[in-house]
Amino acid sequence: MIPPLSTLHAAAARAKPYIHRTPLLRSAAFSKLTGHEVYVKAEMLQKTGSFKPRGMTNKLLQLSPEEKARGAITFSAGNMAQGLAFGAAIAGIKAVVVMPAAASRLKAEATRSYGAEVILHGDVSEAHAHCLGLIEKHGYTFVKFDDPAVMEGHASLALEVLEDLPDLDAIVVPVGGGGLIGGTIMALRASGSKARIFGVEPENADVMRLSLEAGKPVRSPPKPTIADGLAPPFAGERCFPLVRDHAEGITLVSETQLGEAIKLLLMRMKLLAEGAGAASLAGLLTGKLPLKPGSKVVCVLSGGNIDPERLKGVL
Amino acid sequence: MIPPLSTLHAAAARAKPYIHRTPLLRSAAFSKLTGHEVYVKAEMLQKTGSFKPRGMTNKLLQLSPEEKARGAITFSAGNMAQGLAFGAAIAGIKAVVVMPAAASRLKAEATRSYGAEVILHGDVSEAHAHCLGLIEKHGYTFVKFDDPAVMEGHASLALEVLEDLPDLDAIVVPVGGGGLIGGTIMALRASGSKARIFGVEPENADVMRLSLEAGKPVRSPPKPTIADGLAPPFAGERCFPLVRDHAEGITLVSETQLGEAIKLLLMRMKLLAEGAGAASLAGLLTGKLPLKPGSKVVCVLSGGNIDPERLKGVL
Repeated sequence: MIPPLSTLHAAAARAKPYIHRTPLLRSAAFSKLTGHEVYVKAEMLQKTGSFKPRGMTNKLLQLSPEEKARGAITFSAGNMAQGLAFGAAIAGIKAVVVMPAAASRLKAEATRSYGAEVILHGDVSEAHAHCLGLIEKHGYTFVKFDDPAVMEGHASLALEVLEDLPDLDAIVVPVGGGGLIGGTIMALRASGSKARIFGVEPENADVMRLSLEAGKPVRSPPKPTIADGLAPPFAGERCFPLVRDHAEGITLVSETQLGEAIKLLLMRMKLLAEGAGAASLAGLLTGKLPLKPGSKVVCVLSGGNIDPERLKGVL
Repeated sequence: MIPPLSTLHAAAARAKPYIHRTPLLRSAAFSKLTGHEVYVKAEMLQKTGSFKPRGMTNKLLQLSPEEKARGAITFSAGNMAQGLAFGAAIAGIKAVVVMPAAASRLKAEATRSYGAEVILHGDVSEAHAHCLGLIEKHGYTFVKFDDPAVMEGHASLALEVLEDLPDLDAIVVPVGGGGLIGGTIMALRASGSKARIFGVEPENADVMRLSLEAGKPVRSPPKPTIADGLAPPFAGERCFPLVRDHAEGITLVSETQLGEAIKLLLMRMKLLAEGAGAASLAGLLTGKLPLKPGSKVVCVLSGGNIDPERLKGVL
């Protein structure tokens, strides 16, 4: 399940001309607060405001000429939508994104701005069915978050962390379906790093934790959460075994803790994280991660796409 | 008035172990919006949340042993207070900051957290008089924003910009008393760069523009502005001639334009700028800077210390 490092380096090189190398920033404030040496990987500064272009670009650039000619599709109202649209523009192919009709107009507009066709359709299950129908009709490639090439692309984030801080002790990663932590695990283990890997989920959307308990990926409808990017109804089939075998479990955070982490990141570090993006810091701040004092810890701030109204609510 | 480049390199080297090298980030969104190639120097990510530690650290490390033994003082309720406190902690000397009694408790607390003695006293002129009294009594070194060593320290910001983007066409700098633009001018001209330098002031606090009109530094009480960091009642004596001789005038921005720039920076770039910090982008977005289309323009985002309530007001 862990690809060779050469595969990950090739993926990183493929996307590199098109994406940002985001900074790893040391936080004096959070170091003082936790007793660790705390760094954040500021991935909200990535193109489209989240880590998604890393994997999407890598995936779409590797499609066959036939697949490219037909185009790619995904079902998402979040960062994956913009990530697909961005990657498709790079690869020069058609992108279709299906969102439920109630999706944020801002996100629909942002996705369109990268050149994708955005289809707003029905409720969640109707939109999903519509997406599958379009695939059948047009032969689009369905891009999912647990696609190996997507995770291999996401691995570039942790490769950059390793370049900047080779002797990190631990990395804390927000977990939704598991695509980002999957790529992080690939990068660290393929590189031979022994850094510990901690996942964080919202209490209201803990499908990976439930899957670990069940010993297999399960489905579980999420409750509403400010970390809407971490709320898929199922854990990724290919992500699950990586998390099971290489991560040290899942720490849960409350909505209050997520809101506080967003505010703290903004006021102390001047960085805007969305709920999903701040989950790693929220997890660290619970004090529940079993870390030795003074550990070098990296919190992955995976994205910053949050609506102004929602942000006001936590300030 | 322009020091030799070796002086500026020595100043940068002096402060380097203690401060961050902040990233220069290219903005696809603002490039599209303006028709230029827009970069931002994300100085809100600097220690203390503003550029001030650059100059303060350089200044305080160069005090004589006698001066160090007596300590340093400044009169500020803003970023300079935290900058002095930070630099004094680095230099291992006592720091005293006098603020008007009505100063933000958050800022007073932040300044104390770096180890400075904070004295809240009376209104603005009473606090200023109290500061002068303390200098007479204790022999503190009074650190001002137009001190040459302070400006030489601030020059490291533009030296970093030149390293990252040697062929920039223009740099846009927020202007209060003129310390930051002074240091920027020193760096660019000492390096032989021909990049054009534009200053931006709030309409409500335009003492440098008034000084340029008058042909000498004048006093002018500011009206309230969200860019409180740009509202000294006078232009710096040593900054004025630098701006007069090397900058291409001052562009004014309204309170609405400042608020919009803060919101745009947050939503598009995920960076929190205070009013002063966003002034450079606000100036560029007026479209009034006489730039050729496609110019490589750097906006200096000088700081990010804004209260949550004030931020809510612009979201």
